[in-house]
Amino acid sequence: MAENIYPIYDKMMSREEREQQLGQHGMMVWFTGLSGSGKSTVALGVERELAKRGVLCRILDGDNIRAGINSNLGFSEEDRMENIRRIAEIGKLFVQTGIVTLACFVSPTEEIRQLARTIIGDEDFNEVFVSTPLEECERRDVKGLYARARRGEVKDFTGISAPFEAPKNPAISIDTSVLPLEESVNRVVDMIMAIAKKGK
Amino acid sequence: MAENIYPIYDKMMSREEREQQLGQHGMMVWFTGLSGSGKSTVALGVERELAKRGVLCRILDGDNIRAGINSNLGFSEEDRMENIRRIAEIGKLFVQTGIVTLACFVSPTEEIRQLARTIIGDEDFNEVFVSTPLEECERRDVKGLYARARRGEVKDFTGISAPFEAPKNPAISIDTSVLPLEESVNRVVDMIMAIAKKGK
Repeated sequence: MAENIYPIYDKMMSREEREQQLGQHGMMVWFTGLSGSGKSTVALGVERELAKRGVLCRILDGDNIRAGINSNLGFSEEDRMENIRRIAEIGKLFVQTGIVTLACFVSPTEEIRQLARTIIGDEDFNEVFVSTPLEECERRDVKGLYARARRGEVKDFTGISAPFEAPKNPAISIDTSVLPLEESVNRVVDMIMAIAKKGK
Repeated sequence: MAENIYPIYDKMMSREEREQQLGQHGMMVWFTGLSGSGKSTVALGVERELAKRGVLCRILDGDNIRAGINSNLGFSEEDRMENIRRIAEIGKLFVQTGIVTLACFVSPTEEIRQLARTIIGDEDFNEVFVSTPLEECERRDVKGLYARARRGEVKDFTGISAPFEAPKNPAISIDTSVLPLEESVNRVVDMIMAIAKKGK
């Protein structure tokens, strides 16, 4: 801002102006849960349903984060925290653009999720716990990671050789081994629409 | 994607679908130029003019990047490259969401701008050279940095103690010491609108 030499364009558009332009409120929807619990699947469904309702959203997940900006991070304790810190900072940029942002990351500890919440801001942080039990996630084992973890080939694998701390007070809990996908998606969509269109 | 267990929601919305939803094409507009050249001022004007035309855009600049995701970077050669790499990766996420993304960074070398171009993709990278001469930038000295650099208090300051390599083939060049602000803004807006609404 200090570079501004003309008073006529002295300020970046505010979040409120942008939200007005888009006709929606931005927010972060943070999916946490074991690998294979269904975080991405539910988020993909939510994205499609929101598009039908004219709501702009953006999914951040391992595919577009670990392969891109976080490609220079490993899986040490320090790198895992930095991974989440960067995701939260990027998420914040999207939220402040007025976009409904869906983050799908195991994010297994209270400490890690608290870091994300602190960066993004409590009022914009909506935690969705995909609580599908370990047995079901391991049965699905879509990426073959559980088998590898059981064979000791993957270190510190959440649920097998590293703990998952269930969120204490999530906005929504979804067990995809019990709830049909459409119902899981609907619950998240209902929560989002209640916030996204508030006062619009 | 490997986590998807239901075929019904098997893919993230494509960039094309998102652009269809927004009614615009995403792109990166990369402002390069000396400190004080007017990069942010022009970008702020562009943002306002685009908003009037219903085009969603997002400015990335020192204020929201260095203070956020890149707060753990210094000004070593390595950190300057990492700074730009992360900005480019974040920019790519915005561009692929269909958003007109304006990046305002000195980005003084061909190497640094080439890094950004490579990450974002040549077809989405539009370089705007804010070519205001050093004398005028130093005369403005909005942040007082030139004075400090002259006193030797700021190391490797572009234009004083570190080189600025002019882009060889920018999409647009703007000298804000000659062109009125409105005209500078209009030139960038015209370029963007020609791309943003192509085929819409």
